[in-house]
Amino acid sequence: MFDLTELVGSCAAVLTTLSFLPQVFRTWSTGSAHDFSWIWVIGFASGLFLWLIYGLALSSVPLVGANGLTLSLVLLIGFIKWRGRLRV
Amino acid sequence: MFDLTELVGSCAAVLTTLSFLPQVFRTWSTGSAHDFSWIWVIGFASGLFLWLIYGLALSSVPLVGANGLTLSLVLLIGFIKWRGRLRV
Repeated sequence: MFDLTELVGSCAAVLTTLSFLPQVFRTWSTGSAHDFSWIWVIGFASGLFLWLIYGLALSSVPLVGANGLTLSLVLLIGFIKWRGRLRV
Repeated sequence: MFDLTELVGSCAAVLTTLSFLPQVFRTWSTGSAHDFSWIWVIGFASGLFLWLIYGLALSSVPLVGANGLTLSLVLLIGFIKWRGRLRV
């Protein structure tokens, strides 16, 4: 069955996740995440994790996909930030 | 009825929306949104708009609330950027 709702959700997921990618590429290439606060990294990652649980509860593929992927990217930024701290 | 799913979604909504607020305060206080690309503003706003439609289709209060509010904030950043362009 063609499901318009899931299509709209999938387009939403692609757009908001893509919007976040240039930031990740920038952080990856500079290897620096000094300008992100830990409060933002932890707060945003916790929020995305809860969206992921919410998406699983609603059996929503777009919610799980978008938030799972974006959470991985935020954790990557967190890892780069943590590694940078070790270097100093 | 106490609905755990909606509670998780609401916490998710509060956390991801709050994460975005410091950026908005910064843009509001400097009055400058030069460093945001139009592609990001338009792409992210379109994504949030589609999440809003998706939330309405699922009758999800957290999705509608979070994306409605964040969309308003991104449009505010877009407005500041557009106004800044007129000044130059």
